[in-house]
Amino acid sequence: MSHEIIEKERDRIAPQFFGATGTKHESRYQRGLKVLNRLDGEAARRLIETLQEVSPDFARYLVEFPFGDIFSRPALDLKSREIAVLAALTTLGSATPQLKLDIAAALNAGCTREEVLEVIMQMAVYAGFPAALNGMLAAKEVFQERDRGRPGAEAQAQGTKSSLGETA
Amino acid sequence: MSHEIIEKERDRIAPQFFGATGTKHESRYQRGLKVLNRLDGEAARRLIETLQEVSPDFARYLVEFPFGDIFSRPALDLKSREIAVLAALTTLGSATPQLKLDIAAALNAGCTREEVLEVIMQMAVYAGFPAALNGMLAAKEVFQERDRGRPGAEAQAQGTKSSLGETA
Amino acid sequence: MSHEIIEKERDRIAPQFFGATGTKHESRYQRGLKVLNRLDGEAARRLIETLQEVSPDFARYLVEFPFGDIFSRPALDLKSREIAVLAALTTLGSATPQLKLDIAAALNAGCTREEVLEVIMQMAVYAGFPAALNGMLAAKEVFQERDRGRPGAEAQAQGTKSSLGETA
Amino acid sequence: MSHEIIEKERDRIAPQFFGATGTKHESRYQRGLKVLNRLDGEAARRLIETLQEVSPDFARYLVEFPFGDIFSRPALDLKSREIAVLAALTTLGSATPQLKLDIAAALNAGCTREEVLEVIMQMAVYAGFPAALNGMLAAKEVFQERDRGRPGAEAQAQGTKSSLGETA
Amino acid sequence: MSHEIIEKERDRIAPQFFGATGTKHESRYQRGLKVLNRLDGEAARRLIETLQEVSPDFARYLVEFPFGDIFSRPALDLKSREIAVLAALTTLGSATPQLKLDIAAALNAGCTREEVLEVIMQMAVYAGFPAALNGMLAAKEVFQERDRGRPGAEAQAQGTKSSLGETA
Amino acid sequence: MSHEIIEKERDRIAPQFFGATGTKHESRYQRGLKVLNRLDGEAARRLIETLQEVSPDFARYLVEFPFGDIFSRPALDLKSREIAVLAALTTLGSATPQLKLDIAAALNAGCTREEVLEVIMQMAVYAGFPAALNGMLAAKEVFQERDRGRPGAEAQAQGTKSSLGETA
Repeated sequence: MSHEIIEKERDRIAPQFFGATGTKHESRYQRGLKVLNRLDGEAARRLIETLQEVSPDFARYLVEFPFGDIFSRPALDLKSREIAVLAALTTLGSATPQLKLDIAAALNAGCTREEVLEVIMQMAVYAGFPAALNGMLAAKEVFQERDRGRPGAEAQAQGTKSSLGETA
Repeated sequence: MSHEIIEKERDRIAPQFFGATGTKHESRYQRGLKVLNRLDGEAARRLIETLQEVSPDFARYLVEFPFGDIFSRPALDLKSREIAVLAALTTLGSATPQLKLDIAAALNAGCTREEVLEVIMQMAVYAGFPAALNGMLAAKEVFQERDRGRPGAEAQAQGTKSSLGETA
Repeated sequence: MSHEIIEKERDRIAPQFFGATGTKHESRYQRGLKVLNRLDGEAARRLIETLQEVSPDFARYLVEFPFGDIFSRPALDLKSREIAVLAALTTLGSATPQLKLDIAAALNAGCTREEVLEVIMQMAVYAGFPAALNGMLAAKEVFQERDRGRPGAEAQAQGTKSSLGETA
Repeated sequence: MSHEIIEKERDRIAPQFFGATGTKHESRYQRGLKVLNRLDGEAARRLIETLQEVSPDFARYLVEFPFGDIFSRPALDLKSREIAVLAALTTLGSATPQLKLDIAAALNAGCTREEVLEVIMQMAVYAGFPAALNGMLAAKEVFQERDRGRPGAEAQAQGTKSSLGETA
Repeated sequence: MSHEIIEKERDRIAPQFFGATGTKHESRYQRGLKVLNRLDGEAARRLIETLQEVSPDFARYLVEFPFGDIFSRPALDLKSREIAVLAALTTLGSATPQLKLDIAAALNAGCTREEVLEVIMQMAVYAGFPAALNGMLAAKEVFQERDRGRPGAEAQAQGTKSSLGETA
Repeated sequence: MSHEIIEKERDRIAPQFFGATGTKHESRYQRGLKVLNRLDGEAARRLIETLQEVSPDFARYLVEFPFGDIFSRPALDLKSREIAVLAALTTLGSATPQLKLDIAAALNAGCTREEVLEVIMQMAVYAGFPAALNGMLAAKEVFQERDRGRPGAEAQAQGTKSSLGETA
């Protein structure tokens, strides 16, 4: 398959990624913000603002690629994507703040608390009991925060209270 | 919460785990075999037989805990569980034979090929492109094997052709 | 090897797991609690209680499989098992609270402080200096806590002071 | 920082990421191919073609994000980027085919063989001797392949001999 | 514990490691201290003192092997070595305190802040966005500490203020 | 390359590491070789020779630090050290050739086959079932090789049949 074919293939499969159709020219960044807002607008906004203070480019990539490109693909629903994310982050073990953000996001995407716990519990089989145990304790914290009326995990975000959530 | 409460709690939740025999009291091992048969009976049987030659106890635990205890819990459907497993194994990176087994199992549990690829692709975000790339190539192999009429991943299993699938 | 043989094999090897002999019908849960009490009753009790608030089933599995099934197997003494656990948790790197619990457990199982440090130090070779360094600092904290008369690592446990230790 | 500021920031930094076509508006995909060609055109072409057979979208993302976005950033030279990649892949341990590709890429980016070995050797300190040892053996294979006149690591690529290298 | 005590302790344990003195016979330990001083004398001194309280031997190995043997090899400059270290520690994910120490060390070895961020950002490709995100936040903290006039990461060091930095 | 050549090579590269000779001044390298010979002389010799072809310095470090420094410390017996190594390598998951070498080494250090399997089995709890499963299959291969009269794991070593075992 030659380079020309590569180019054609790309156009055939995903013309919408290159600004041709639909709501016309919606950028990857805009698409990413929409997904983030649906998952956990307030927490995502704070995280992005915190990141922008150290690396605005990385903050942009974080919106564009994971959320603008991957999460917004129609072939898998958001709830299933969050199940995959909970499994991955519990397995990694070293990303507890992100796990807490995504436990909240999973709940916002339609997972029940019970389903969140099932996914984390299942990781005892694949990543070991310590990883699952830490995931369980992270879930407990997120549930408690929500029961107290506060939005999900806020561990990594310390920013101003601007309007990203509303305007995106 | 005292020890007595722990004991009571256990009995309330899952009395069937401690029982004798009979359909009412299906054993953890029997339940595990049923789940394994549904996911990929032939490949699972071979893997278990291979394991039994080196450690019959571990072969039994593998049926009892992951499949008899965890996979057979009703709070999450098999398809969602397999999505979580694909995410975990792609993230681990070092368990390609198991990943191939579970790609086949995910297809048997109702995932489409496209959904399998979406989960693996999403791991580029959480575990990096090399992990996702290796997952993609594993999926390609499983798809090709199935297209050639052979059952899924067989990497780790070399055993006799007995009837576990039918009788379990 | 057919399914029937699998069933027979299981019975031959470990009849005691299925409630046939000995102190008659000691459950996996009861066996697990015994091991946990020997390793670090107070810390284990608190951890289990904390877990029970979020997932009683996972709290039960944690007692049953790791401790009721694996740790209580006679083929390896508790001290050797704790050496393996210290190596595994130091290698994982992301499970510091569990590492602290198991440093205390290793001491209770007969390891000297020097032996604990040797195992962690050796992980510099297999998992790198950062992992070993973090393990060393965890050990230092556990040793200091014990020197101050407090029981081992308590990082993950916040519960009531009930009698699990005595009654199990 | 408000959402409006986020949008402005993005435009200030990288207007070219959002554009139409023409040399002024080179696409992320085109930029990515250029970097890949410089690093190891033949091996990259084969890998992309192999990927396209299973997931053309992932093949495109692989060109666009890692190479079109990240590697083509001017703030760090290609040689330093490859040093970082060798360190990361040696540390991961489970991505030997990619490590081999990047050992070849590092040589093409200006690293000497001695420098490649130094980076891998240093990982004995951070990821342990087994990881460094496996990296060393991967380097040995790549060096031997190049000494025999064959292009670098070819482990993951089986494709036709088209002209991506020349035309991209 | 002062620097003099460090020297005495070292001599007591393993005089044979250090041979005679003079430039001809500079010991591995002395070479290691020199490198450490150049990278981040104050933070390194505190870390070593903390370690010496729990394991003087491991403290010595930490100076001798990583810094006396590996970092002091002439075949790769310190700046390139620190780029490799940042990549490795960001990839590991579970060694944030060491990552902060090495972000400071990388700056001292000649990396700009922008280059530090580029290396961490690139790890989004190889180890996933969560690992890169945590690295970014670690870099932000180190930069802020330096802007406030305090030396780099101090997370793991609580010791007396002796003179290792000046005299080694 | 024979053992004599190893000695000469070593002396050529870094005579200063070995000080004077005689039992009083046994070098780290000599101590390391003794430990390696006791653990698995033939396999270790081949691995070192293979490494020396790509990086004689790294081959030397591998003897000096892990074996000359760490394994030869008297505070923990070789058998316990090998238990820790089996746990670490099973947990890593990506170091199967080294795991096989160390399964053989553990047997040579006094572990029974049953104990080797117990340690690997226990890793199902700490690193997950896939890691333990792969460890089990590695053990099975090593046991089979030994039953066929061949020395332990030989995966990574292809060298001449010299006399390192006897003379070191």
